[in-house]
Amino acid sequence: MSWTRQHLLDIESLTVEEINTVLDTARAFKAVGERTIKKVPALRGKTVVNLFVEPSTRTRTSFELSEQRLSADIINFTAEASSLKKGETLKDTARNLEALNVDFIVMRHTAAGAPHFLSRVLDAHVINAGDGAHEHPTQALLDTFTIREKKGRVAGLNVTILGDVLYSRVARSDIWALTKLGANVTLCGPSTLVPRTFEQMGCRVTYNVEEAIREADVINLLRIQHERQRKTMFPGINEYTTLFGLNQTRLAMTKPDALIMHPGPINRGVEIDSDIADSGRSVILEQVTNGLAVRMAALFLVNGGKGPQEIEG
Amino acid sequence: MSWTRQHLLDIESLTVEEINTVLDTARAFKAVGERTIKKVPALRGKTVVNLFVEPSTRTRTSFELSEQRLSADIINFTAEASSLKKGETLKDTARNLEALNVDFIVMRHTAAGAPHFLSRVLDAHVINAGDGAHEHPTQALLDTFTIREKKGRVAGLNVTILGDVLYSRVARSDIWALTKLGANVTLCGPSTLVPRTFEQMGCRVTYNVEEAIREADVINLLRIQHERQRKTMFPGINEYTTLFGLNQTRLAMTKPDALIMHPGPINRGVEIDSDIADSGRSVILEQVTNGLAVRMAALFLVNGGKGPQEIEG
Amino acid sequence: MSWTRQHLLDIESLTVEEINTVLDTARAFKAVGERTIKKVPALRGKTVVNLFVEPSTRTRTSFELSEQRLSADIINFTAEASSLKKGETLKDTARNLEALNVDFIVMRHTAAGAPHFLSRVLDAHVINAGDGAHEHPTQALLDTFTIREKKGRVAGLNVTILGDVLYSRVARSDIWALTKLGANVTLCGPSTLVPRTFEQMGCRVTYNVEEAIREADVINLLRIQHERQRKTMFPGINEYTTLFGLNQTRLAMTKPDALIMHPGPINRGVEIDSDIADSGRSVILEQVTNGLAVRMAALFLVNGGKGPQEIEG
Repeated sequence: MSWTRQHLLDIESLTVEEINTVLDTARAFKAVGERTIKKVPALRGKTVVNLFVEPSTRTRTSFELSEQRLSADIINFTAEASSLKKGETLKDTARNLEALNVDFIVMRHTAAGAPHFLSRVLDAHVINAGDGAHEHPTQALLDTFTIREKKGRVAGLNVTILGDVLYSRVARSDIWALTKLGANVTLCGPSTLVPRTFEQMGCRVTYNVEEAIREADVINLLRIQHERQRKTMFPGINEYTTLFGLNQTRLAMTKPDALIMHPGPINRGVEIDSDIADSGRSVILEQVTNGLAVRMAALFLVNGGKGPQEIEG
Repeated sequence: MSWTRQHLLDIESLTVEEINTVLDTARAFKAVGERTIKKVPALRGKTVVNLFVEPSTRTRTSFELSEQRLSADIINFTAEASSLKKGETLKDTARNLEALNVDFIVMRHTAAGAPHFLSRVLDAHVINAGDGAHEHPTQALLDTFTIREKKGRVAGLNVTILGDVLYSRVARSDIWALTKLGANVTLCGPSTLVPRTFEQMGCRVTYNVEEAIREADVINLLRIQHERQRKTMFPGINEYTTLFGLNQTRLAMTKPDALIMHPGPINRGVEIDSDIADSGRSVILEQVTNGLAVRMAALFLVNGGKGPQEIEG
Repeated sequence: MSWTRQHLLDIESLTVEEINTVLDTARAFKAVGERTIKKVPALRGKTVVNLFVEPSTRTRTSFELSEQRLSADIINFTAEASSLKKGETLKDTARNLEALNVDFIVMRHTAAGAPHFLSRVLDAHVINAGDGAHEHPTQALLDTFTIREKKGRVAGLNVTILGDVLYSRVARSDIWALTKLGANVTLCGPSTLVPRTFEQMGCRVTYNVEEAIREADVINLLRIQHERQRKTMFPGINEYTTLFGLNQTRLAMTKPDALIMHPGPINRGVEIDSDIADSGRSVILEQVTNGLAVRMAALFLVNGGKGPQEIEG
């Protein structure tokens, strides 16, 4: 077990051992979540600011619940991106939070690199809750946790990520985590949204959806984010669904034990058929549950926690 | 004493004994609210999500205070109705909350039946904080609590509900509670807003305001909700005030000990004269205070609490 | 030590002894803020409503953290000024909060005098977090605290307030606090924004910025609030910066140990050069830190706390 980092900023810079430490610590916290009293005093008297410059009810709620279960004091600070446009002003916001003696900043920002910037100018622990199209490390950790729990391992598995990879921070973080842990990652989607440059990250890129899913042990569907698509990049929702949506015909081509994953919220009938989302093949809601445990682990470790033995003991 | 329900969704389905159990439990919690330390540990370690899809500062604040006094952990989740339009999506939101292991969902929604729907798809306890024009059960319970406390009983009292009954969830819940407990309920207001179909709920309907208030032991004024009135249904605010507003002339016709109630927020000078609202005849602020106790009782009982003896003991 | 007030509404009505009691109590709380566990149980079981009718992330966050560190239960109540326009409605909102048994109301309002009005109609303790262009007492107390801490005294110091004094509640509260404690206060800025009527508060008014800063021991820069300036009062941001902004040339004219203060958020390059804001001469972030201690002291004292000996003991 090893963890010495003060921040959780991305997956790219983590070692395999560090990723495994988070996953093992999360497993111990998942057991806590199944008790009647789900709280532990690990962060009692500590203050966490959830600094969400881009709105996100789900991720914010998941972090807030994780913080409550660690007994932290919580401040929700939702800023308009427009009022925090300049690096200087973000720096001032951050320095102000530090002057208020806050201990943790969980940050979502529209700008890639914003949490890294914060971590360089602050003493507080920074956790990246999604920065632009760059990384969303706790999502990748909960995805990996879920795969490991369901399949018993990650190494050697075929994992297909399907959808708008280009604009997806989830995809980037997942690719880093999965390839580090030894999975074979295939990317698929419209060619404008899945450029071949991703092969440099150690992935296979294909535009043939049948080929992409046939040998997969895990199929991770990305959310189609209507608002971010530029018309020149994306032909239309209906065409996407026809060409890449996971329907019963395509499901029948997959391995019978292939897991269906999605970071949520799902667009029923767009990237996934409604009945597949609700079927036993889907682990979408287990991902949500595991998100709590992974976020508790991240907060616990950057605070100086040593690993799962402290929670289980 | 008897309470076995996991949810509080409406008044319509409650028995007289269940209503009395809530009222008796609320009486015990009201005593707690008068102590210096107003908290009890009944929900320590439990998580309540206040899921308000329709904005309501007052009801949300009342619930949040009730939850704090029961020592619960609280998440405020305010969604735009527009983003939760479809049944499927509401189901997904609810399932996500459940996957996060939340214990209670207090829900306000623009759609009638939304909390009932939630209660069927979730294990979490659901409390209806107002669904469309359907029901607002904790409001009816606090109204009934206030009447019982002030008058010593509910059975046999003449209670007049005055105003926009048609679009009022408060009126519907009040009618259920009051008729179940044996009060004689009279409805009055513009004929477009008080259709005779309400007689099927066991009420008397009259369009003569003097007749409606003369024998009343309780006069419950509904808020005129400008934003919801359709022009074809409602002649105008001034005309409403002239025809149905409670002014000094009308007050003089009432029994000298008739209680004046209002669910708030009041429109001074519209449905009620300002000085009547502030007079000793009005119990409007006591309704607010009693709301806390009733909401604590509701949360306590759906959590498996057995009744007032547990709180007093 | 003496404090018997139930509210903190302004600086104008405080005695010198009362101001010193707040500052001494804040010093004790500042020591608490430097511990690993920063919480004290002074307000356990008490409820604080942060009633912000005018948005303010910074001041609200500072109060919320102060309240958490005193172990209070917290309700954030953010209203639109438009829905609370009339005195009657503000009264109703306040009375509702009182009926909910809240113990403290921390209020920011666009209307001068709103907290004073509240304090007359409520039993709850009221703390003014800024009312219109009238007063912002906790800001003045944290400014005075910072000066006293850095300079060892306030009496006899030359303090220059530079900027839009006319529309600034910070300036008014600072003038009251500083003159009461014996400082010599100079006001400077565009003549339309620094009328000579302020001389009646015991200040010197000058329109010569070099003269204003040359002998100053403290230079307090006010934020240029673009949104409030009327075009007829204010020539333009660039002209303001040229004529009154604190740049290196002007800094070179000041005493080498003159403190640079700013209530934040700063407009870098407008009222202050970016590098001056970040230099050792600036105590801007220390003001932020001290704000926590001063707000804890204010809440503690209006709750009946007797002074610093209770916290240190």
